[in-house]
Amino acid sequence: MARVPTGISGFDELIEGGFIENDVILLTGGPGAGKSTFGSQYLYAGIMNYNEPGVYVTFEETPARIMRNMWRHGWDMERLIKENKLRIIRVDPIAYDRYIMRSMETGQQGDHENATLETVLKQIYASVTEIDAKRLFIDSLTSLKISPDPVHVRHIVLEFIKNIESFDCTTLITSEINKDPENFSVEEYLAEGVICLKVFRIDGERIRSLEILKMRGVKHDEVLRPYVISDKGIIVYSDHSVIGKEADVFSLQRCSILGEED
Amino acid sequence: MARVPTGISGFDELIEGGFIENDVILLTGGPGAGKSTFGSQYLYAGIMNYNEPGVYVTFEETPARIMRNMWRHGWDMERLIKENKLRIIRVDPIAYDRYIMRSMETGQQGDHENATLETVLKQIYASVTEIDAKRLFIDSLTSLKISPDPVHVRHIVLEFIKNIESFDCTTLITSEINKDPENFSVEEYLAEGVICLKVFRIDGERIRSLEILKMRGVKHDEVLRPYVISDKGIIVYSDHSVIGKEADVFSLQRCSILGEED
Amino acid sequence: MARVPTGISGFDELIEGGFIENDVILLTGGPGAGKSTFGSQYLYAGIMNYNEPGVYVTFEETPARIMRNMWRHGWDMERLIKENKLRIIRVDPIAYDRYIMRSMETGQQGDHENATLETVLKQIYASVTEIDAKRLFIDSLTSLKISPDPVHVRHIVLEFIKNIESFDCTTLITSEINKDPENFSVEEYLAEGVICLKVFRIDGERIRSLEILKMRGVKHDEVLRPYVISDKGIIVYSDHSVIGKEADVFSLQRCSILGEED
Amino acid sequence: MARVPTGISGFDELIEGGFIENDVILLTGGPGAGKSTFGSQYLYAGIMNYNEPGVYVTFEETPARIMRNMWRHGWDMERLIKENKLRIIRVDPIAYDRYIMRSMETGQQGDHENATLETVLKQIYASVTEIDAKRLFIDSLTSLKISPDPVHVRHIVLEFIKNIESFDCTTLITSEINKDPENFSVEEYLAEGVICLKVFRIDGERIRSLEILKMRGVKHDEVLRPYVISDKGIIVYSDHSVIGKEADVFSLQRCSILGEED
Amino acid sequence: MARVPTGISGFDELIEGGFIENDVILLTGGPGAGKSTFGSQYLYAGIMNYNEPGVYVTFEETPARIMRNMWRHGWDMERLIKENKLRIIRVDPIAYDRYIMRSMETGQQGDHENATLETVLKQIYASVTEIDAKRLFIDSLTSLKISPDPVHVRHIVLEFIKNIESFDCTTLITSEINKDPENFSVEEYLAEGVICLKVFRIDGERIRSLEILKMRGVKHDEVLRPYVISDKGIIVYSDHSVIGKEADVFSLQRCSILGEED
Amino acid sequence: MARVPTGISGFDELIEGGFIENDVILLTGGPGAGKSTFGSQYLYAGIMNYNEPGVYVTFEETPARIMRNMWRHGWDMERLIKENKLRIIRVDPIAYDRYIMRSMETGQQGDHENATLETVLKQIYASVTEIDAKRLFIDSLTSLKISPDPVHVRHIVLEFIKNIESFDCTTLITSEINKDPENFSVEEYLAEGVICLKVFRIDGERIRSLEILKMRGVKHDEVLRPYVISDKGIIVYSDHSVIGKEADVFSLQRCSILGEED
Repeated sequence: MARVPTGISGFDELIEGGFIENDVILLTGGPGAGKSTFGSQYLYAGIMNYNEPGVYVTFEETPARIMRNMWRHGWDMERLIKENKLRIIRVDPIAYDRYIMRSMETGQQGDHENATLETVLKQIYASVTEIDAKRLFIDSLTSLKISPDPVHVRHIVLEFIKNIESFDCTTLITSEINKDPENFSVEEYLAEGVICLKVFRIDGERIRSLEILKMRGVKHDEVLRPYVISDKGIIVYSDHSVIGKEADVFSLQRCSILGEED
Repeated sequence: MARVPTGISGFDELIEGGFIENDVILLTGGPGAGKSTFGSQYLYAGIMNYNEPGVYVTFEETPARIMRNMWRHGWDMERLIKENKLRIIRVDPIAYDRYIMRSMETGQQGDHENATLETVLKQIYASVTEIDAKRLFIDSLTSLKISPDPVHVRHIVLEFIKNIESFDCTTLITSEINKDPENFSVEEYLAEGVICLKVFRIDGERIRSLEILKMRGVKHDEVLRPYVISDKGIIVYSDHSVIGKEADVFSLQRCSILGEED
Repeated sequence: MARVPTGISGFDELIEGGFIENDVILLTGGPGAGKSTFGSQYLYAGIMNYNEPGVYVTFEETPARIMRNMWRHGWDMERLIKENKLRIIRVDPIAYDRYIMRSMETGQQGDHENATLETVLKQIYASVTEIDAKRLFIDSLTSLKISPDPVHVRHIVLEFIKNIESFDCTTLITSEINKDPENFSVEEYLAEGVICLKVFRIDGERIRSLEILKMRGVKHDEVLRPYVISDKGIIVYSDHSVIGKEADVFSLQRCSILGEED
Repeated sequence: MARVPTGISGFDELIEGGFIENDVILLTGGPGAGKSTFGSQYLYAGIMNYNEPGVYVTFEETPARIMRNMWRHGWDMERLIKENKLRIIRVDPIAYDRYIMRSMETGQQGDHENATLETVLKQIYASVTEIDAKRLFIDSLTSLKISPDPVHVRHIVLEFIKNIESFDCTTLITSEINKDPENFSVEEYLAEGVICLKVFRIDGERIRSLEILKMRGVKHDEVLRPYVISDKGIIVYSDHSVIGKEADVFSLQRCSILGEED
Repeated sequence: MARVPTGISGFDELIEGGFIENDVILLTGGPGAGKSTFGSQYLYAGIMNYNEPGVYVTFEETPARIMRNMWRHGWDMERLIKENKLRIIRVDPIAYDRYIMRSMETGQQGDHENATLETVLKQIYASVTEIDAKRLFIDSLTSLKISPDPVHVRHIVLEFIKNIESFDCTTLITSEINKDPENFSVEEYLAEGVICLKVFRIDGERIRSLEILKMRGVKHDEVLRPYVISDKGIIVYSDHSVIGKEADVFSLQRCSILGEED
Repeated sequence: MARVPTGISGFDELIEGGFIENDVILLTGGPGAGKSTFGSQYLYAGIMNYNEPGVYVTFEETPARIMRNMWRHGWDMERLIKENKLRIIRVDPIAYDRYIMRSMETGQQGDHENATLETVLKQIYASVTEIDAKRLFIDSLTSLKISPDPVHVRHIVLEFIKNIESFDCTTLITSEINKDPENFSVEEYLAEGVICLKVFRIDGERIRSLEILKMRGVKHDEVLRPYVISDKGIIVYSDHSVIGKEADVFSLQRCSILGEED
């Protein structure tokens, strides 16, 4: 099986060298965890190191801000776009939602929603084929969960993932952690792999850590590894492990602090 | 009563040699626990060691990916399919859901849903009879819970299990752990046996463990046993027991870590 | 007041010799706690030791599997049925549910539901009178809670219990623990007595325990007593008490483990 | 202000000698806490010691079982009924519910519900005037909460309490603890006084305790007092206090056990 | 800015001498915390010490009972009413609710609700102008939350507070603590000031404490201060502070007890 | 990239000198945390130190009270308004809500809501252009969440933020903490930066602290910093850090207290 190196420093050695080609991998984390940086680096390294074009799909941020934010790491995305190596497309969830709303009024939700999911998928696919992309980064799956009904959400997530799997890209999709943290989300069951980014404190210091929850067909690392967001992007310390306490992890989720435990 | 050895190394001795023939057994666990590996191994061992054909029913994964993922363990499922010893069928929950949706629009949910459940059962039964299967693995029951109403879900789960019981197969069904972990799910009450896969950490190391919650009519083991997912598949250490703390178990569910407790 | 010995070894001495005649007693517990064994033993001992015929009402299991599972304890239920001392009847909740569904479509839920509850009660009563039963075991009340509306459920449970009270039987009804464990269920308030089966771990060993939450009009034991499911059925150790920790009790509910507490 | 001694041994000295005449007092507790015994004793002592007739209103239990259960304490309620000192009336919540259901079908819930609440109040008032009762015991308020809408429940509870206040009786009303234990119920805000019965374990022994949460216009005790349900009824040890731990209290609510804490 | 001394012994020094004139201040607490006593004392001291007439608005209690309960503190409210210094008015939430219900039936909720809120405000304003009141006490805001929809409740609370602000009174409004205690209620955000009454136990003794959560434009105390409900009313010990544990606070909310912590 | 100094003493050095120009930054906190003071100071310093006009948008407070409350810090907002350096506008959420309600009655929610959001945005934009504002403070985003449907709320928040981003202002928006504290809110994901204000107790003393959860494109501080609300406004102690315990943080959220931990 062909492997796709992520280019994230220290990460590939945790998964036997890279993702399995054409798999869909989930990346979960809270605000400030560095999901967008992880995905940008995955695309940027793909272009620079392996000459694999990539598509960045955003549902919320503007491409301009994404490019601006990545300047901090010295990544010139604008140039790559001009060279037809990169596409950053914004699929507008507002237009999407409005469409849904109108369809709800007319009482024909089912078809419209599928039609809209199709529209989203077509937009993504058009960019993928346009530059013959091999890597795809989608931020975030949460924007597609346009229903309060969990059965409906399961349907949408499954349909979306299965379609993306057929695009001949190795895909990374982000997901917000917004539900009850003691439950797994549906996408954690459906994706081929799950990478969790978690931020917590030990004795007042903020520690970022990464864990591979699963990676089907791969003998993957199972340790919680520290990482930093440096000027050069994300660096995973694959030789270190983080030993903390449960209570620490929760503290930052609530944007607070923990000190020395007795 | 005839017994069906699972072929999972170290497991059968926990249940007096095997499942009771034609029982329906539940296998619960989170993402990455190894449910699919457990089920594949059950079918593979049935064919290789006991010459019992088997059917693998998936609602979400494609048969191609299942076969690919099992290559890691050296199981050549493609060959077994050609020899008519194995079937991997995907029953499409999307088509299924769409059907439900349309029926909801017309306001005749009751009959349609039963009709659809019948369709699913007929598809499974057709494969079972085609190769005269003795073992059945269904992944996962959660996909069938297509209603937000718990009364309705109870009905579906009961109807499904009772029908499967009449197929003359010894059946293993997986179930996701997605509900409130302090409550048992309806399938844990309705199935003849329940095997729980749980992953947690002790002092930073990830430990996989298996427990038999119940096995009606069987004098079963009641200890939490460690297991590993090796190159040869799952190995249960039936002579060891896992002594951990409650808090440890929860940590991994949230994809985090626990250290040395004071 | 006449007393009805349960025949459960070690149990009757906790309640002044037995249930009060014609009372309705609730038996709660999770999967694998032994509720069905408790009820079967109550009926079997009634027939063998006190010559009191009994009826076993199941909403989910088939009579065949019940008989099979009780073989482990050497109880020949089939013979007792032939001798007209025992009836095992399955009242089909699926047919029942379908009936409700149809009535919901026609918008006349109230009457239909009562009609159906009547049907269930008539089926039970017919078996009771057929063999002049004195003991009744119903597994489980949870199957009757066919509404998401707690007010409606309260109505059903009350109507059901009050009708069963008029059958001239001493009745044991099981109930699943599926709700928030910090709340009492409505049946715990409405029944004359409540017996709780609870399974937990102390230092890695699984311990089964029984507690009498209430028994109206009876001076009952208030200690948590250990019990085992032996080859001869349930044995309560009325001279022992279980001293554990709260956290232990919860661990098994989640199918996990607890070790030595510091 | 006239005071009404309860006749509960050891209780009156906690509230300056008795309830304030014509107040409505709430009595909360779980199953097995002894709410019915407390209320029966309040009525029985009123008749025997103060020659004040009393009415026992039950929504769920039959009068026959209430009388039977109180035999344990040597209280001959049947005689008191014959002497026109006591009435035990069952107001049927089933008929009541059915009425509501029908009104819901016709879409005129508001008026019907008030009409029904009026019917219940009229039935109670008829018994009160018939024997010129001075004491009233109502078991339980929970049965009247016939709506899933908390605004509606608030309305019903307020209307009911305010009407009962006009009956020239000193009234004790029970309430189940079924909601989130960290929240107060609406009746705890609306009643003039609140008495809480709580059962918990300390080092394996079950301890019953009573606490006066509030008693408007009265300088009341604020300590948690132990009580027992003896052959003579409830005895409160007003000179003792219960010092336990929070965790203990919760354990019994879940019908479990607590041991020695480290 | 003019200040309004509350007359609560020991309280004014915590807030630079008194409330800011015409502000709306929230007073939160559970049953038995002394909210009504606090408000009565605020009005009584206003009349006796500062010659400022006051209006007491109750949605649930009758004026007769309020006057009776305050006798314990020697406050002769009846005389003050005769002297036109005090008004106690009961705005009937039942009539109010019925009105809403009828409007819901007719499907024109929006306007009716506003009309009703207007009616309530007009009743209050009429009393305020009648005696030229400078102080207003409203018990409780919770009664006005006549909708299960939090958006709707937010609207009602905001509209109510903003209207009351225009009455030229310095107003104290009570609010029950009935929601999830880890969340702030909408009124805590909207009011100019928030005073929290909390009752808990330390080593078996019930301790009442007061804390000023906020007081806009005022440099206020931030310490948890003990208070008692004495024969003379509420006394705040502004020189003492309460040092307890989190667990203690919660214990009384659940009407239970806490002992010595190890 | 141009930076916008906030003028909050000690804060700018945590974010490389200031916000990125034209970004939308979120400020979260409970009642009494000082969100309004933070925002007023941001605008006031902008005018006084950098000659950048500012607009204060309030959905709930009246401009008069805002000006009054800021007098405590010696900020003469009235003068700045006269000099056309400042605008304080109140956008009326009541009128807004009524509009929504009417539209809901007519069944055309989608368009009306967008129309209303447009009206709100136009009002804000008119003030911004009127004085050529460079800074914008909006208090609070919570008032705009006029739907119980989280999908709808996500839509509103996204549409609002994206429109505000186009106003050529550097914007600070407050948000109440009212949801489950273990979950992040949608705005924490969508905003470019998130500043959290948190109040807790250590050994009886109330401690205010500030943490930067994220700031896209900026190398920001990650330590929990103490701050005070002084007569001169907010002062952040960027050289100190707060080391507390998780339990402390929660205590004040519930308006309670924590003492010395053992």
